[in-house]
Amino acid sequence: MDELKNIAQEDIAELISIVGEEYVITDLDSRKDFGHDETEDFNYPPEVVVIPGSVEEVSKVVSYANSKHIPVTAIGAQTGLSGGALSVFGGIGLSMKRFNRILDIDERNYQATVEPGVITQVFYDACKEKGLFYPPDPSSWGSCTLGGNLAYNSGGPKAVKYGVTNQYVLNLEVVLPNGEVIWTGANVLKNSTGYNLTQLMVGSEGTLGIITKAVFKLIPHPTEDLTLLVPFTSAEKACAAVEAIFRAGIVPAGMEFMEKDAIDWTLKYVNDVQVPTGDDIQAHLLIELDGNSQEQLFQDAEKIAEIVEDYDAKEALLADSQAQRDALWKLRRRVGEAVKSHSIYKEEDTVVPRAELPLLLKGVKKIGEKYGFKSVCYGHAGDGNLHVNIVKADMSDQAWNDELPKGIREIFELVKSLGGTISGEHGIGWVQKNYLDVVFNSANMAAQKAIKKALDPNGILNPGKIFPDA
Amino acid sequence: MDELKNIAQEDIAELISIVGEEYVITDLDSRKDFGHDETEDFNYPPEVVVIPGSVEEVSKVVSYANSKHIPVTAIGAQTGLSGGALSVFGGIGLSMKRFNRILDIDERNYQATVEPGVITQVFYDACKEKGLFYPPDPSSWGSCTLGGNLAYNSGGPKAVKYGVTNQYVLNLEVVLPNGEVIWTGANVLKNSTGYNLTQLMVGSEGTLGIITKAVFKLIPHPTEDLTLLVPFTSAEKACAAVEAIFRAGIVPAGMEFMEKDAIDWTLKYVNDVQVPTGDDIQAHLLIELDGNSQEQLFQDAEKIAEIVEDYDAKEALLADSQAQRDALWKLRRRVGEAVKSHSIYKEEDTVVPRAELPLLLKGVKKIGEKYGFKSVCYGHAGDGNLHVNIVKADMSDQAWNDELPKGIREIFELVKSLGGTISGEHGIGWVQKNYLDVVFNSANMAAQKAIKKALDPNGILNPGKIFPDA
Repeated sequence: MDELKNIAQEDIAELISIVGEEYVITDLDSRKDFGHDETEDFNYPPEVVVIPGSVEEVSKVVSYANSKHIPVTAIGAQTGLSGGALSVFGGIGLSMKRFNRILDIDERNYQATVEPGVITQVFYDACKEKGLFYPPDPSSWGSCTLGGNLAYNSGGPKAVKYGVTNQYVLNLEVVLPNGEVIWTGANVLKNSTGYNLTQLMVGSEGTLGIITKAVFKLIPHPTEDLTLLVPFTSAEKACAAVEAIFRAGIVPAGMEFMEKDAIDWTLKYVNDVQVPTGDDIQAHLLIELDGNSQEQLFQDAEKIAEIVEDYDAKEALLADSQAQRDALWKLRRRVGEAVKSHSIYKEEDTVVPRAELPLLLKGVKKIGEKYGFKSVCYGHAGDGNLHVNIVKADMSDQAWNDELPKGIREIFELVKSLGGTISGEHGIGWVQKNYLDVVFNSANMAAQKAIKKALDPNGILNPGKIFPDA
Repeated sequence: MDELKNIAQEDIAELISIVGEEYVITDLDSRKDFGHDETEDFNYPPEVVVIPGSVEEVSKVVSYANSKHIPVTAIGAQTGLSGGALSVFGGIGLSMKRFNRILDIDERNYQATVEPGVITQVFYDACKEKGLFYPPDPSSWGSCTLGGNLAYNSGGPKAVKYGVTNQYVLNLEVVLPNGEVIWTGANVLKNSTGYNLTQLMVGSEGTLGIITKAVFKLIPHPTEDLTLLVPFTSAEKACAAVEAIFRAGIVPAGMEFMEKDAIDWTLKYVNDVQVPTGDDIQAHLLIELDGNSQEQLFQDAEKIAEIVEDYDAKEALLADSQAQRDALWKLRRRVGEAVKSHSIYKEEDTVVPRAELPLLLKGVKKIGEKYGFKSVCYGHAGDGNLHVNIVKADMSDQAWNDELPKGIREIFELVKSLGGTISGEHGIGWVQKNYLDVVFNSANMAAQKAIKKALDPNGILNPGKIFPDA
């Protein structure tokens, strides 16, 4: 990356001429506000923050940066968990916060056109008001934005039934690294017209283009839902019960796993819900069912209650009000924060075929014993997506810095051997890139890098991310 | 493409040394058998047909071809409708017919691993036997293969509820143009690990790699279905009824539109079904509902019957036996063949947002009047995917060859203006490439070509396809 350039005074003047003085930030304190996301305690401030207000301005900024070999890192809501929004090479931090409009919700065609700075939950609510449903719901959906969801192909609890962000994207307006503006596809449900640039952009972490508009597919919103929390005396058996529920032909709209510590620590911050806990309870499954028939949901819930009995479950708690349901989900959504407040930690976003979860959980604990770390696991069990939170607790700095990476690599090798991969929904970003070779052979990595080079020959877009040598 | 080389005698010897004499075909008659698909009456035989039996052999053939700049065109079941499998630059026709094994159906994880030469319906049946469901079902599913479905991102009637091929692909084994073998992803339901090479390969028409294995996601097979055929006195009103049905919150598992001529011509070949026809009936909708509750399906069917009344429908025919249901679907699946038998024709695979279908149909007829052609339209109305069959009938050769392309371009410009695109499920291939600029700007085309160049610098894989100047 030695060919990338630092910001000079003339660059600032040019950027001001494009977006206006009000939208160019240079003082360090303010830049630091744009230097972090939710990943560990990193802060890499951009050399200058630019806040464009239109696709034309984005195009001009990127085009200028490309001509000068200045890094450009898109910055959304800074809720990411892989360090993808960190300006690790300085340069321009391109805040997309002015792109915050829902441009159209097309009720005739079940589609919506939005800007990337719209908060996910705001978009969900606007759709729901019209009886439409935008399912992807990352835990941070109250603060994260759709642009970040696209950049990292975010999931969330509902992914198990409804799929992740990329299954709802029909078309994207993108500013390419050379400053040119394209639409990647069309506003249609099926498309066999040229290469799928839409899906290439989704999950590319701002390294191939800057998304300035997105057209999403919507579906009818289910009218009924039902939430239950099932306590288990064994974490591994809780994971095994997940497969059994699917094998019974039930597809829940949420199937979340939380280990004992995850729920215990979170209960310190969330006190409006009664949860069965105790020494004999080692894990919980939080299960949501949805559909258009309340009767069917109760039938499915009864079937689930029967199934989990075979896996040493205790009596399930059925949310009997919207308030109780909301409280249970708030509990689940707060787990990440709670673990973070508890200790220095690293979060691994492992994902395996669903039925392999018990093997993964067992393996993670065994590797922890070998390397001397404790882990708190929770996540989207229905998708096989287990967030492994490694807490520093009383590990020495030396062990944390030098030994732990070997342990993480061993976890990822296990994941790979089970048919899985190293990130289910957080992305590779800055913190996982050195493990990419665990899951891709050199020919695959070379192909990915060739695509990067083809679209961004000067390497200006989000340098330092995804690839080990980026 | 002047740098591409013809096959020499030494190349034949090398190919025989890789796959064995039995699997190298050089006589012209046999090569002609591999020179066509189902697109118009084209025949472009490869200079040599090679039939590899393992990924290692594919790798060696491609690697050799790359070193010699010899074109390689993958050939599946030859049921394609855009000329994608035609060896227009000669070279090696790589028949994948020996890759015909279902390697694994994993009932624990709802996944299957298959080779690309497996016939789609054979795979569907094998899954169904285990209670699992692989939904994509192109009209040609009894003869087309999964490799072709992947290469063209095929749809089919069930796409309206269940999505097209790309929504079921988790992971692909691919031989890259340089002969290297990669897996594109992992066997998981969510994945944020690097660029989405899986989705880049799907729909790339054999121009970026040769697929040698695929891992598909499966879902539980619905237990009940119900089929009805609704006659309409106006084709445009039939299209308008489609939107109204979805607006009522019903998501049918099939929603097929057939214009009068389409059904009349097909009835000449299919005579085991009674269909309400007559001068006052201008179109039909064939609607399928599925789910796990027969009662719910009947409720939805009644709701549909009420809705279509507002669109001048005649009385619907409800299939009251599996035999009648099969006969109705056979009728629909045969429409393409029937139109082909009737006249020289060109098929356009237009797709628009669902609610714009009436405007599309009206516009197609108007453009037909202007250019003097007749069209027969049918297709997957629920997806907005209208197959426009332009029949030559008594058009002069001059008008057919010189004027018609202008009319087709006008149809595609209309499609684009409605938010749609020029291929919903057939691909661009050989016959649509000159229209690609209607839907993509030059920056988009340049990005696509840059990706092609990055992965296939010598341009050996399926040359002459997708791009106007390819």
